[in-house]
Amino acid sequence: MKRLFAILATLAFSVLASGPAAAQATSAAKERVVIQVSTPEQRIWNQALNYVENLQELYGKDNVEIEIVALGWGIGMLKFDSPLATRVADSLKRGAKLQACEVTMGRQKLTKQDMLPDIGYVKAGLGQIIKRQKEGWSYISG
Amino acid sequence: MKRLFAILATLAFSVLASGPAAAQATSAAKERVVIQVSTPEQRIWNQALNYVENLQELYGKDNVEIEIVALGWGIGMLKFDSPLATRVADSLKRGAKLQACEVTMGRQKLTKQDMLPDIGYVKAGLGQIIKRQKEGWSYISG
Amino acid sequence: MKRLFAILATLAFSVLASGPAAAQATSAAKERVVIQVSTPEQRIWNQALNYVENLQELYGKDNVEIEIVALGWGIGMLKFDSPLATRVADSLKRGAKLQACEVTMGRQKLTKQDMLPDIGYVKAGLGQIIKRQKEGWSYISG
Repeated sequence: MKRLFAILATLAFSVLASGPAAAQATSAAKERVVIQVSTPEQRIWNQALNYVENLQELYGKDNVEIEIVALGWGIGMLKFDSPLATRVADSLKRGAKLQACEVTMGRQKLTKQDMLPDIGYVKAGLGQIIKRQKEGWSYISG
Repeated sequence: MKRLFAILATLAFSVLASGPAAAQATSAAKERVVIQVSTPEQRIWNQALNYVENLQELYGKDNVEIEIVALGWGIGMLKFDSPLATRVADSLKRGAKLQACEVTMGRQKLTKQDMLPDIGYVKAGLGQIIKRQKEGWSYISG
Repeated sequence: MKRLFAILATLAFSVLASGPAAAQATSAAKERVVIQVSTPEQRIWNQALNYVENLQELYGKDNVEIEIVALGWGIGMLKFDSPLATRVADSLKRGAKLQACEVTMGRQKLTKQDMLPDIGYVKAGLGQIIKRQKEGWSYISG
């Protein structure tokens, strides 16, 4: 009988620990948002950087993880000659991650020397966005 | 022994009630779609309003909840001088919610007097889209 | 007592089989990505076709299902006179699905004779994207 209760307890625990309730609790703890930047328009790049400020103000800086993934036509936001270099640096200082897509860099023959300092790199921008979605991050198209 | 069965029954019920099956049943009942409008292009605003008609035709007017969130460069769709004022009014009459982002309004020094009548307001457009995604709404970038 | 263990075993099995772990296992088996194309810009159409190549390279051609849904302002990508006809044919040969939205075709008085060969058709582009999201596909805005 004791063994039976032990099994029950284990089972109940695994339900509670791995079920939707647990997932909800985790995501309530900290917001996580991945933002896609894939257009060549500077006003859209600017807007994505506004999003960093807005989200930090909304949730509190320590309660939200923000990752901007620049790929395709959006890669220019993170290039060395980006018109938004100062704002990019500010977003990094605020704790947001800005990730450049290495597939895009390869297509455009860009190396890390061509990019802004302190940014991050991901093997494939699309793959990163897909991975984040599957990890439960909210997805925002820039 | 009776108590044991009671525990088992409770456990089984909680699995059935909170599991993926329950989530699916809820979402099958009524489609819920949140549409982001964050570009300054009128043709994209127009398209978002087309989406309202299309979704209501597809699912039946009473079987779908639609919320358009206008933020950033998209806020103009809901301003008093919007070139789409008539279509916005029509979408509201159809039962769609059109929500203006108050963060954007603050940045652009807009008050409710500057906006179209009968629209809704959300504290933060991004926050609303994220909230809807977490509630299981489908997300469409306008 | 034996019956009790049988109930326990059934319960444990149903938890393991229908829970998040199972969902993860399924999605790990094959990536599934739906891409929305709804802007009139050729550079964005081109980019969506790049995505097909990138995703197949990233995951391996047999490990990813890709569906591009062209609707609204994006329908031109799949019209007979599309500037990207050759690239569309190549994407089809690679195994991607390219779906034209019949709601959009109706609005623009287009018939299948006006469209590129071998593409697919969906009753409603938005409905297809929503359906895919609910089936667990990753969503990318083009």
